[in-house]
Amino acid sequence: MSARATLCMLLLAGCAAQAPLALRDMGSFHVGGREVTLSGKPVKEVVFTPGGVPAKVDPNGTYLVEAMYVQYFLPANKRGALPLLMWHGGGLTGVTYETTPDGRDGWLNWFVKQGWDVYNSDAVERGRAGWAMYPDIFKSEPLFLPKDEPFGRFRMKGSQFPVEAYDNFVRQVVPRWTSTDDAIIAAYTELVDKVCPCAILFHSQAGQFGFKVAQARPDKVKALIAVEPAGQGDPKLVDRLKNIPTLFVYGDGIASDARWPTIRKNGVAFGDAIRAAGGKVEVVDLPNAGIRGNSHMLMMDRNNLEVAALIQRWLEQQGLYR
Amino acid sequence: MSARATLCMLLLAGCAAQAPLALRDMGSFHVGGREVTLSGKPVKEVVFTPGGVPAKVDPNGTYLVEAMYVQYFLPANKRGALPLLMWHGGGLTGVTYETTPDGRDGWLNWFVKQGWDVYNSDAVERGRAGWAMYPDIFKSEPLFLPKDEPFGRFRMKGSQFPVEAYDNFVRQVVPRWTSTDDAIIAAYTELVDKVCPCAILFHSQAGQFGFKVAQARPDKVKALIAVEPAGQGDPKLVDRLKNIPTLFVYGDGIASDARWPTIRKNGVAFGDAIRAAGGKVEVVDLPNAGIRGNSHMLMMDRNNLEVAALIQRWLEQQGLYR
Repeated sequence: MSARATLCMLLLAGCAAQAPLALRDMGSFHVGGREVTLSGKPVKEVVFTPGGVPAKVDPNGTYLVEAMYVQYFLPANKRGALPLLMWHGGGLTGVTYETTPDGRDGWLNWFVKQGWDVYNSDAVERGRAGWAMYPDIFKSEPLFLPKDEPFGRFRMKGSQFPVEAYDNFVRQVVPRWTSTDDAIIAAYTELVDKVCPCAILFHSQAGQFGFKVAQARPDKVKALIAVEPAGQGDPKLVDRLKNIPTLFVYGDGIASDARWPTIRKNGVAFGDAIRAAGGKVEVVDLPNAGIRGNSHMLMMDRNNLEVAALIQRWLEQQGLYR
Repeated sequence: MSARATLCMLLLAGCAAQAPLALRDMGSFHVGGREVTLSGKPVKEVVFTPGGVPAKVDPNGTYLVEAMYVQYFLPANKRGALPLLMWHGGGLTGVTYETTPDGRDGWLNWFVKQGWDVYNSDAVERGRAGWAMYPDIFKSEPLFLPKDEPFGRFRMKGSQFPVEAYDNFVRQVVPRWTSTDDAIIAAYTELVDKVCPCAILFHSQAGQFGFKVAQARPDKVKALIAVEPAGQGDPKLVDRLKNIPTLFVYGDGIASDARWPTIRKNGVAFGDAIRAAGGKVEVVDLPNAGIRGNSHMLMMDRNNLEVAALIQRWLEQQGLYR
């Protein structure tokens, strides 16, 4: 590196708190997937664009399906000891961690500004990962959510969620399947093989993905942050998680919800099992930590950065921050 | 701004060529869409996660569909006079402009490094924009491409395309419809209303979107870069484009292709019509400019930054760069 380049890197590091986002690199890649061959389907003539030139498209052949999409942001002033992977919940994409529906910084920008290399992704069949033909390849039909549906299920009423921007949140919702878990886990495992050792922060549906992938690659995962996990890992393999410090974070309004007391109880029981196997598990119910009113979409709530700071402190306590 | 902040901004600007990416902000939003109400469908009980708590999902109700996704990167050292919007082609997403399939900088990073505010997007029904039920809302079936299909149609054989990374390109391909053009144009028009005046760089299928949206908002679009457009605007409304400088860019190997001579001829004829109406149109066939071997995916080819530099020079010639 030239003297000028070195000086610039030093200046940038010093200015990182002022320069909103000084990155040494950013980019994206796809990872994982498998080939599937289809046959016996009719050839179609397709006009891709009105007035365009027709093309024959033969749908028979080999498809590359079930890859996933990853976008990374690497700060100039790197302070996280490991990459921080962010995995979204069901019916959503990596947009979960980007700008909030009402236009504030999300957890992606915030953790990058703290100096973490962040890898934000779209799981198999979501967003930029693309999706495959059903029932030929995916075995069930996709599920679509009417716009009012998540409002109750995500405990938004009377919460810190910016309800005035609820429609923008609904715009982030994408179709999802309930039969693609194995494919999602396979791709996440390939992601971990590619970019870890790392810490993984995962939300809601990704509860089972975070824990199961950590059980598959216990040596590569150095911390788990389970944000309102809706599923867990394999209870028979909890001992594989005993060397991975784990934080559970739950929001507010759980006791008065129809489903969340059970979902929380299952998560906490899984944490207890990891602890019983010798693991280090912390469960934070935000209201008990003085942080009130959080919906299921903690990373979008008005106090989202207060919750992020709590996670940051826990990561520091694990010795993963310089 | 404090003295320290000002100093830092100046240093960052001066270091911008060294600091790979100094941003004053980055983020994302969704824009556009409409509400559609469905009725008469059975209520489903859905277990979103294995072992999870079943939820009743009533598919009847109002859906918010046909919005689009936009991600923006705003350099600290801003030199572009206007935002530069990047619109991808058919069966693809904004990933088109990100890291190339073989891991090099794409046009997104390159133009941000030149100092352009770049808005890269996923059109309606692609990627993070999500998609809607068919045939209830979208009126046709989606189209899936076998992995070998684009190779010929995108003129990759013997080209500058990094064929060793072809599978990574295929991983970027997503399902597409051929019945959603009006919805795509409506959302792009809302995007233009939100972030323009601007320059728009568009590829392939987006040929018709770039030209038609410019015809709908001629006062808001200050430059058009049509990269191998596969469609055009409304020929009856070419006069609306007469004040918008327009660049057409075509790659190599067109003469020996089955479809591309016609596609190119249609594009050039549309450019001629704009010129006849008083417009300023430049058509660059890259081989004639000494840039050889480009496939249809110019922004991913080995010489992708050479093509980007040609576009940059043209933007400078239009007085849109400081």
